[in-house]
Amino acid sequence: MQVRLGRRVFEENDRIAEDLRLRFRELGVSVVNIMGSPGAGKTSLLEKTLQKLNGTCRAGVIEGDIATSLDAERIARLGTPVVQINTGGKCHLDAAMINKALHDLDVSALDLLLIENVGNLVCPVQFDLGEDRKIIVCSLPEGDDKIAKYPAAFSAASAVVLNKLDLLPYLPFDCDGFRQSLRTLNSEAPLFELSCKSGEGVDEWTEWLSRTNPRIA
Amino acid sequence: MQVRLGRRVFEENDRIAEDLRLRFRELGVSVVNIMGSPGAGKTSLLEKTLQKLNGTCRAGVIEGDIATSLDAERIARLGTPVVQINTGGKCHLDAAMINKALHDLDVSALDLLLIENVGNLVCPVQFDLGEDRKIIVCSLPEGDDKIAKYPAAFSAASAVVLNKLDLLPYLPFDCDGFRQSLRTLNSEAPLFELSCKSGEGVDEWTEWLSRTNPRIA
Repeated sequence: MQVRLGRRVFEENDRIAEDLRLRFRELGVSVVNIMGSPGAGKTSLLEKTLQKLNGTCRAGVIEGDIATSLDAERIARLGTPVVQINTGGKCHLDAAMINKALHDLDVSALDLLLIENVGNLVCPVQFDLGEDRKIIVCSLPEGDDKIAKYPAAFSAASAVVLNKLDLLPYLPFDCDGFRQSLRTLNSEAPLFELSCKSGEGVDEWTEWLSRTNPRIA
Repeated sequence: MQVRLGRRVFEENDRIAEDLRLRFRELGVSVVNIMGSPGAGKTSLLEKTLQKLNGTCRAGVIEGDIATSLDAERIARLGTPVVQINTGGKCHLDAAMINKALHDLDVSALDLLLIENVGNLVCPVQFDLGEDRKIIVCSLPEGDDKIAKYPAAFSAASAVVLNKLDLLPYLPFDCDGFRQSLRTLNSEAPLFELSCKSGEGVDEWTEWLSRTNPRIA
């Protein structure tokens, strides 16, 4: 019963996500679903990315959080159109929430839509949002064993961002081991080692984002 | 339908958890459910705690992870009885999983059972495991906004551990703001600011754990 209902929930989500995907393609907007643990630096990555892409494309953001509009306020300060979704306890965004958020965001005026999911390295990856690419953001302080321990998230990623590189001198983090784990699990996904604080490595990430999203000039 | 089934899942879990709670009480074992984001330092806290409590009580551990037995191997190295649960994708431990794990752990020979939940600041708190106390572990690099953004977890906590205090010089973390957020949301829960790396603050935490678990000498 639980399994049957679970399947129905995913089927319903996939149906709405497919409609969203068609709509995004018709409008010519690239959509990126950004996932990671609480505090990995997803909003900081968005801030840095929007600053770097400034003038190259029309970007918009959907922020997903259980509570508060703290993240949307940070994005709004950059002058980027943003909608905050509060899931009210739910551990992930789903396609119906995105559909509803689009009432408050003119997606036809965008080239790139960046969706920041709820901070959670497990559940969000199971819910298709109609995106073109899933990105996993993790950070050095989380430890070098995260790929082995959360394989579904890292398997599904089109790219992985390893943030907080500035903390490397103070942490026992095995960079080579982390790279090797990713190569073994998901040999396709490029890895961007960067620091949103210092700015190191951010250019390589935004160059990849531009290259893989042809509407960015 | 989804809501009705959801409720049934929780009711079934609560029923098994109540049975576990009775059994733990009859056997005189204190049970602590440790939750937090991936990489907050839950296993490191267990290691430090077991080293400090060494000789004061008979402790055992249940490790919950989606995949791998890395954490159980770390605990086993200390000579502590440990059982690894792999949830195979599930985002939380539930009471039935604990019930099953007890086939491989002689809980009647323990004074203290420490359960490390799946790394996830959202879902685990919804599932009663028959524990006496829920502990939330978070860490400085996750940021000082986590209490406001994940209120259910911090509301349910009997105590909060703020780990990785050694990284304070390198991070923009507002300790006073974090303390104030916790006081506002959950005025009962003591806050232990510590570093599992340097050992700073760990004694205050283990003293509280001993004081609140009378079977520890």
